Formats: sequence, structure tokens, C-alpha cells
Amino acid sequence: MMSPALPDNQQVPFDDRGFAYGDGVFETVLLRAGIPVLWGYHTARLKRGCQRLGIPVPCQASLDTTWQGAPTAALEVLKLVVTRGSGGRGYAEPETVSPRLLSRRTPFQPLVGRWQQGVTVRLCHLRLGHQPCLAGIKHLNRLENVLARREWSDTSIAEGLLADTAGCVVEATSMNIFWRQSGAVLTPPLDQCGVAGTLRAALIDQGAVAQAPLPLDEIVAVEQLWVANSVQGMWPVTTLLAADGSPLARWPLSTKDPLQRLAHQLLGYETGYEPSAC
Amino acid sequence: MMSPALPDNQQVPFDDRGFAYGDGVFETVLLRAGIPVLWGYHTARLKRGCQRLGIPVPCQASLDTTWQGAPTAALEVLKLVVTRGSGGRGYAEPETVSPRLLSRRTPFQPLVGRWQQGVTVRLCHLRLGHQPCLAGIKHLNRLENVLARREWSDTSIAEGLLADTAGCVVEATSMNIFWRQSGAVLTPPLDQCGVAGTLRAALIDQGAVAQAPLPLDEIVAVEQLWVANSVQGMWPVTTLLAADGSPLARWPLSTKDPLQRLAHQLLGYETGYEPSAC
Repeated sequence: MMSPALPDNQQVPFDDRGFAYGDGVFETVLLRAGIPVLWGYHTARLKRGCQRLGIPVPCQASLDTTWQGAPTAALEVLKLVVTRGSGGRGYAEPETVSPRLLSRRTPFQPLVGRWQQGVTVRLCHLRLGHQPCLAGIKHLNRLENVLARREWSDTSIAEGLLADTAGCVVEATSMNIFWRQSGAVLTPPLDQCGVAGTLRAALIDQGAVAQAPLPLDEIVAVEQLWVANSVQGMWPVTTLLAADGSPLARWPLSTKDPLQRLAHQLLGYETGYEPSAC
Repeated sequence: MMSPALPDNQQVPFDDRGFAYGDGVFETVLLRAGIPVLWGYHTARLKRGCQRLGIPVPCQASLDTTWQGAPTAALEVLKLVVTRGSGGRGYAEPETVSPRLLSRRTPFQPLVGRWQQGVTVRLCHLRLGHQPCLAGIKHLNRLENVLARREWSDTSIAEGLLADTAGCVVEATSMNIFWRQSGAVLTPPLDQCGVAGTLRAALIDQGAVAQAPLPLDEIVAVEQLWVANSVQGMWPVTTLLAADGSPLARWPLSTKDPLQRLAHQLLGYETGYEPSAC
């Protein structure tokens, strides 16, 4: 059913439905000395995404072949894509679906300075549309994220926060968001839109984070705000800008926070990694 | 800026943003004896889509190269894709964007029997989400269409009608919809979701069709219903099924309607084409 993973620099056929319609899912996985971090969470989300889209789920062995090779660097990022495979013209799937698994590994350095000095983020103009059929999974239809990321080019702005059409903050363009309020750490539910990150899932499973909506007008009042994903780790937010660039809120830097420590433990960033590039 | 169109059976690099994020637009164009039909409408929509996404607009000459070759059949379909080109990991676009233009031609036969005998369509369960940033253009994020098309496999059902989250009928999975009511022919506005078809645009420009919303509970009361696109032509709807398969409405067959005649004139289907396959 599933073709084996092909080597790097592979090409995708023109008739692949991932290319034609974004008909597939992907994962971006941190490899530490060649071993995937949070691999169980990544494969679980990928399989859940395939199930949601009705794509035959790749077997675990075929997924494992994507990282079973000598590492090229201490840290790498493995990008893994599963599509519905080749198809004819038109949205109807072919009688026999042969999903396609593709992957690529690239050396990686996290932006350690952002762990230590915190970041400035901005609100985006774009509002995420509601589509419960696609919410939470990491599918290949990412134009909302692309358009939101195009809203700024100022390199001093690390991320953009996205609200949905109901006016609740949902995520950042490529990270989940977390905040502390009255002693609890919270993250938005992602049942209408957004991508449910693997680090977010692990933090919820650890009991460190609960889910709650965050109306736009309440974000300035949170006690601490973070953006995080499973590759870059967790960045404390020190400044929040409005979409027009005007300052909305500032928070004192909090780098000794137990949430960041736990997140970085989960990613293996607390030991065995020498900070370098910012 | 824009690479020339490559020959058929071309491959797409793994790092192409069309593959990674659906970051691009496409067109599906009827070629009659090698000459594109409604070409001005197709190129206008493609350019509008690129502008909306912030992709450098291909020059007319590069678009024209995609069909300037000897025809392989009396009728062909030209599929044309423009992506933002290759990019690194992450949603931010590279400093220099080099869009990629790809195309493929395949012989084609319209389903003439559906022009003459009409079709059965069904309502889909899936509701289109609202995203004004992407509405109307023919971008590569088509998972809603794919999921809607997966709702049925009964070959006697020709199309599925999609309502939006506000409860208005918007389009079919790969066609626009048209209906007659009180002497006027109407089609839904597509400012929140849906793809604005080129045949639809031509019919509006001809003054034959106006735009109006169609609440779900009013569809059974329309005097006549059609689904149409610029490749297949216009199909009169004779039976509408609910999402559970139960009949909702029937209409008498209307194949001499001036709307269908005009649509088929615009596509060149009224002359010089011998009906064949159903």
C-alpha cells in the first residue's frame, strides 16, 4: 500500500494530490543525535490526520525508516509528508489509493537567544476561519499561516498571534500559545481551527497545561505568555504589539519558569546542548 | 523571475511551497483544437489569485507557452499551476521568490449525457468555512472540496452541493451553481468561501446571471437548478437528495433552456462537437 520512504532531494509527481490539493499531512520532528524527540506524539498526530482525511494510515515501520540513518548533525529537523498519492484530475480519489510518504532531514540550531531573552510578538490581521473537519491536525492546507506570516518582515518580531473569526486567540503562525492566569497555565482549545502541537499535547498529558479560550481583549491581562513548538522550544513573550505595530502589553522576562523548564526537558534542551546561535 | 513552463510529466521539488503548504493557484482550462476557451477569464483569475497571495504574477507570454503546441485531441484539458516556488522550512517566504509554473495537457471528453438527461445531486454534510482572504480564487488548499467529494461514491450522484457555516448554499464540489427564480438566473456571491468559476464570470458579464444568497431551506423552491463549470459545461439538476440520500426535490428536465444554450455557446459546445461518451 505505502511506498517506502525515498531518499532526500526527492521529487513529487505533478499528479500527486498533496501538490494538487494539499491532500495530505506533515510533521516537523526534532532529531537529537538521529533519534526523534516526541516521536510517539508526532506519529499519533500524523495517523490521526490520515484517519481524519481518509488516507490509509502508514505503518509504523515505514515511518521509522524516515529517521533510521546516521545523523548529519547533533540536531536535525526531519520533515515528513504523507499524501493521498497520485490521482487523476478532479477531487474524487482514485479507485486504489496508494499514499506517498516523503521525508527530508536538515541540520538544525534552535534560536537559543529567544529562550533566554524572550521575544516580541504581534497580533495578525488575518482571522482563522472555522473548519472543525480540519482543526487540530497538521494538514497541507496552510495558506492561512502563509498569509499571516506575510503580514510582517521586521526581524525583531518573532511570531504573529492568530485570532479566529469568533475573536479568540488560537495560536501563533507556527507555534502554540500558553499563558499563566491565577496559577494555572492555559492553552486554547483547537476544535474549530489551529494545529495541535506535539509539545502542547505532551504538556497537557503531563498535567502542566489545561485548555481554555482566550478572548482577544483578555490577552493583555494574562500574567505571562509563551509561544512554543517541538522544534524551537518555548519562547517567553516580553512584548505584544497590535497589528498596526503599537505596543499592547509588556511582561517581565521569566526564564526560570517551571513551564519552560518542563518543555525543554521534554525536548531534551535542558542538558547536552550547548547554546550557540541566537 | 518565472521559470518557463516545463514539459508534461514534470516533477515538483520536495521544497516547493505548493507541495509544502498549498501555496499557489491553479486553473483547469478547456482546449478546443489546441486553443484555450475563456482564456482571458482563466488568466485573469490566476493573476488575481497570485495578487491575493502575494505571489509575483506570471507574465502573459509564460502562461501562453503552456498551450502553444500541437493538440493531441480535439478537446483537451490544460491544468496550470503557479506556486510561490521553492522555500526553506517555515512559513516565511524566502528573500527572493521565484514562482514556479507547471502545466499538463490531457485529452478530454465531456459527459454529454448529463447535458441532455440532467443529473442527480446531493447536499454535503461538510460546511465550507468562511475565509474572505481566500474566497473566490482557485488556490491549492482544496481539502474542503476533497472531503466533501469523499462523502459519496454512488456513481448515479453527479455532484455534491456545499453550504457554508452560515447555512447558505455556495457551490458544488467542482462546479458553480445557478438557479432560476421569478424570471432571474442567480448564483451565490463568493466573498466568504467558494471558487468563482470562469464560466460563472462570463455568464455574469453577459448579463445572464446575477448574484444572490441561497439559504439552504429555499433551494427546494427554486424553479430550475444547474451546476456548471468551464470544462464540463452545464448540467440541469433533476433530483436533489439530502445528505442522508433521501429525496428533497425534483425538477422537470429543461435542456432547451437559454441559460444552458448560452453557457455552451461560451464554451463552443453548441457546434463542432459530436456528442459521444456519457
